This record gives sequence, C-alpha cells and structure tokens, in this order.
Amino acid sequence: MLGPFPAPCATSREAAHARQRRLTKPPGSLGRLEQLAVDIAAWQATPHPSVRPAQVIIFAADHPVARAGVSPYPQAVTTAMVDTFLRGGAASAVMAGSLGVPMQVVDVGVATASTPPRHAAGPAHASPHRASLHRAAVADAIEGDIRTEDAMSHDVFAAALAAGRDAVTALPAGTRAVILGEMGIGNSTLAAAVTSSLCDLPPDLVTGPGTGATGDCLARKLDAVRRSRDRVAGSPPLEVLRRAGGREMAAIVGAAAAALSRRLVVVADGFISSAAIATLLAAEPAARPGLIFSHVGGEPGHRLLLEWLQALPLLALGMALGEGTGGLAALPLVELACATHNSMQSFAESGVPDRD
Amino acid sequence: MLGPFPAPCATSREAAHARQRRLTKPPGSLGRLEQLAVDIAAWQATPHPSVRPAQVIIFAADHPVARAGVSPYPQAVTTAMVDTFLRGGAASAVMAGSLGVPMQVVDVGVATASTPPRHAAGPAHASPHRASLHRAAVADAIEGDIRTEDAMSHDVFAAALAAGRDAVTALPAGTRAVILGEMGIGNSTLAAAVTSSLCDLPPDLVTGPGTGATGDCLARKLDAVRRSRDRVAGSPPLEVLRRAGGREMAAIVGAAAAALSRRLVVVADGFISSAAIATLLAAEPAARPGLIFSHVGGEPGHRLLLEWLQALPLLALGMALGEGTGGLAALPLVELACATHNSMQSFAESGVPDRD
Repeated sequence: MLGPFPAPCATSREAAHARQRRLTKPPGSLGRLEQLAVDIAAWQATPHPSVRPAQVIIFAADHPVARAGVSPYPQAVTTAMVDTFLRGGAASAVMAGSLGVPMQVVDVGVATASTPPRHAAGPAHASPHRASLHRAAVADAIEGDIRTEDAMSHDVFAAALAAGRDAVTALPAGTRAVILGEMGIGNSTLAAAVTSSLCDLPPDLVTGPGTGATGDCLARKLDAVRRSRDRVAGSPPLEVLRRAGGREMAAIVGAAAAALSRRLVVVADGFISSAAIATLLAAEPAARPGLIFSHVGGEPGHRLLLEWLQALPLLALGMALGEGTGGLAALPLVELACATHNSMQSFAESGVPDRD
Repeated sequence: MLGPFPAPCATSREAAHARQRRLTKPPGSLGRLEQLAVDIAAWQATPHPSVRPAQVIIFAADHPVARAGVSPYPQAVTTAMVDTFLRGGAASAVMAGSLGVPMQVVDVGVATASTPPRHAAGPAHASPHRASLHRAAVADAIEGDIRTEDAMSHDVFAAALAAGRDAVTALPAGTRAVILGEMGIGNSTLAAAVTSSLCDLPPDLVTGPGTGATGDCLARKLDAVRRSRDRVAGSPPLEVLRRAGGREMAAIVGAAAAALSRRLVVVADGFISSAAIATLLAAEPAARPGLIFSHVGGEPGHRLLLEWLQALPLLALGMALGEGTGGLAALPLVELACATHNSMQSFAESGVPDRD
C-alpha cells in the first residue's frame, strides 16, 4: 500500500558531486548545503535540483486523550486553530505567506466546537495568507483513547493514510516539495507514545512539556504514554502508529509515502510529524531518500527520536510549535542549497584560478 | 570615532514581549525566533521589527602574508572573485539574488592581477545578480606582513575604518539591516591571528584549514599566526586588529559601528567577519545590541571566538566560505521571526481559547 519507493539516481548524484567540485568555492565550504543539493539532485534525478513549487499541508485532528487533561489547552483549540490557519493568522500561515508557499489544511477528524465560524471575518490583518480547507472522508467518529484502546480501527487508519495520499496526489503538477505539518491538541502525547514504543525508549525520557504541560498535567500525560506503551510495545511500526498515534500522524505517513513514491522532497516538521514519519521509515527503510528533517526543537522526545533515526536536522532553534513552522523555517536553506548548486559559476566559467 | 551606540528601547522591548505572549501559540514555542523579534523590536525602537530592506556588503582586500603560502589558493583569486561577485556567479551573489538582497563590493586593497577584466562578459548565466563595485580611497599600497610588521599603519587603518563607515552612510535611506562579508586570500590567517591575541587562545587552537590548508601550507599558516601573536598579544582590541588583521576586517568594523550607531541590524558572517566584529565589541561593549551572529562553521577558531563572545549563532551547517554566505543563509530566519511577530493574530483577535 505504501511505496514502492524509487532509488536516488546514481548518475545524477555523481554529476552533482562533480559540479559542486567545479564551483567557485573551496570544496565543502558550503557545508551541509552542498550535500543537500547533491542529495536532492539525485533524488529528483535532475541536474537542476529544486524545492519550488513547494506546498505545506497541515493535517488536523482531535483526540480522546485530550479530554484526559494532557495539555494545558482545551480541545476546542484544534478547531479554532484551523480557523486561524484559514484566516492567515497562525504562525505557519504567516511564514507560508512570507515565503510564498501555498498552504492546505486537511481535516482528518477535528471535533467541531464552539469556536467562531470558519472563514469568519477576522480583524484587519496585513497581507493574510489564507489556507484552503479540505475535510477528508475519515473525519467522523473521533474515538480511541490510547490509554485503554487502539487510537484507530484498521478502517479508520486506512482512511487516514488515504487522506494523506489523496492530499498529495491532488497537488498541482510540478510540485517539487511538501512540508508536512499537523495540528491537534493532545498530539504530543501521541507522538511520545509512538516514540516510546517504536524506539523502545522509556516514557519519561520522551514525554515533555509539549505546549507547556507541567505538574499534574504533565503527570497525566506521562501516565497516558505509559499506559499506551504497556499495550502497544512490540507491535510492528505501522501498528504502533495505528494503536498509539493519531489520524493526522497517519495522514502524514500517507502523504509522505505518496510524495516520496513520486520523487517529491518531503520536509518533516517537528516532533509529531517526525514521529509519524519514523514509523514509515521503520516499516519501509527505502523511503529514507527524499526526506529532510527540518529541525530539532526543545521537546526531549524530538531529539531522541531524531537520534534514533540517525537524522541530522537542519535547524536547532528551540522551536516546538508544529503546524509546519519548522519545515517552513528550514525551507529557505534548502532553496539556497539548490540555488547555489544551479547558478554559481565554475572556476572555468569565471576565470578564477583554482588551487593547484 | 566609533559610536556612540544607542541602547535598545526598553518600552519597545516590553511591548514586544507582551505581544509575543498574546500571539496564537504556546509561549516560547517559536524558540529563538521569538527572542530575535523582541530584540530587533527593542533595537529598532519599533512595534514592527524588520530586516528589510537589507544590504550585503563585501569588503575585499589582499594581504602580503598570502604570498607566504598560507592558503592553497593563489592571491590572484581575490581579484578574480571580485569579478565573480560582479558577474553574479559567486555563492553569495547567487544567494543574494535568490533572496532579493542587493550586494555591494568595496575594494579596500585588492591587488590587481592577471584575471579577466572586470565586467567581462561571462558565459550565459541564469538570472545573474550583479553587485556594484566601489574602490575605496584606502585601496593602494598593500603592505604589512603580519609575521614581521603591523598589517596597517595608523593612517591606513583609519582609512579602512572610514571606508566601512562610508559604505554604510551611503546606503539607501530606510535600509534596516546589513550583512557584512569579506573576500581576501589569506584572511583566515589574519582572523586566527586576531582571535589568538584578542581572546588569548593558543595559535594552534584557532588556526584551521580555512579554504583547505593542510600539511606544509597549514604549518606556514600556524607559523604566521604564532609570529603575529608574539608581536601583538596584549595590545588593546583595535590595535590587535590594526596590527594583525586586514583592511577588509577594519572596514567591517567601521561599517558595523556606523550601522549600529544608526540602529541598523548588523548580521555578522563567518570567522573573518566575526573576528573583526569581536575587536569592536571588546573595545566598545555597548555595540552588542543590534548584532546577530549568523552561523558557526567548520573552522575551529570561529567556534572558539563565538564562545569567547558568548554569542549563540543561528545556524551550524559547517559552512566556511565567508563572502556573506552565512549571513545570507541566516537572513530568512530573521525575516520569519519578524514576520510572525508582526502578522500573527493574538488569541483575542482569532477567538482561539487560551490556556487557563
């Protein structure tokens, strides 16, 4: 169902390496930007690597565990933040607008609540970047408290994967990169639960404050992670996701798999996005090329997860917001990597004397 | 001559802090981007921090020590790279073009050499970003081998500082940020010499490969740093710069001081740019606000210098090219910090329920 995943093009990789050596700079002096450009050239099987046009997709869902008080924010925030994405007032929407990256929100199970109506006229707002909203077929019947039940039935899991896949297959032709973000109050509890079981890491090491849980709230969060792990540990990776994750995480897996099978560059966002993608990588190691881990944040589970993946994030700025913000923050670096690769002159072209 | 330097605006800082707490995100969840926005708001004394319009200025110079074989590249590369900036084929020129940041090259002592004529028609080249060139009055009589002599006379040093200052005062009104880069074969030897004397660090700890020095070349480089340190250690900071640095480094100090005295944001680039600015900070601690250290690279002296400055760079990507590339790579992060600060909605505006 997921995959098959193409291999990077060895010929393109070799050509990109050779080009990097000819450009007017000491070899390696652009650091990781050089490797990024070479990896993307190989992945896209092209002499002209590019991550534009890019798209940011935010999968949003609610979770029964949120009602157990694992987050300092009420569950209604999920719906309200979807509204705020659509109005252009959320951090990721502002970033996407600033970078000219279109944003799409896919509702894979947001509890409708008493927040302002969607598309409500917000206050006057400079250059809003309005996201589009798609309500996926999976978006009903939110049940499955990970403390006592599987988060998703097999059918719901399959539908959530399909919602992610469908979001990618509906992208405009020529899209070169997707940033996969999420929104869902309580989902850092799910990410910690998935990470604990997937990576065999103790719950207390991977459970952090998320949006700011402390005291009793953090204790309830840790309890939820422990109980989920007791039920789920030892399951195969995608079963860990189905049983301990969330629909937005499953949708991210479906979206990543669809994008990678088409040679799109996939930019993982924060802890929740990365935990989802980690289950894909554990199940399908061939999905690794084409993936970029954008950042490591303040959440302890995020760092441990990336170490387990042997993934080297591009940024370490203490961000811990999700909703695509880490991926968007890293995108300009990837673009600059591609731009220098594509447009710098070689020593021969420029007449600059090379080293002996 | 340098300064006076204004203090950040406490009222603007407080207002910016308060605004960050109202925006639709958990407090602190944008990590260092939040602090950046607050710092810039305070520095610019505005509720709307911004680093656009930005300008990248590259100060270029040659150095007698280059003829001692401290670099794997011939001295003629300096002139040739200036040509390549002007043609848009250098890494920083490509980045500046990609980001829409105008670039200016200031020649503060480039040895004219047998490279192709300036403005020579290069090969067909996609969307070149042509820099402007200014030849500063200081740009004659390149002498002062740091192994045996002071790099600059007092007059040359003053003229180099003035060249930097003049480049900033000539910027278009409304410019909000400058990225200060450099080009000059041999100048990582100067940066290591300055760092060793300024920070009282052993020459072998701060002398690295630069553009790729190894073996005998690296040994000659280390010897030059040692001999300079023997002569210069214990001098006041700006005297260290005059005696062991280079004209492009002095120009960076003049430019940084002029920019900071006008409340422009100054983005330090790599090892050479940062070493120059370190002498300014050591002489004038009041110059610290308004400075952003863009990255830490692979050069060991760069890391030690930033630690000595207690400066936390935004990026750590193993870059070691100079010419403004690190500053340009970090600029989008600073822009995103400002954009989220300025354009996100608050909880009240968006109707998102806040935490209790």
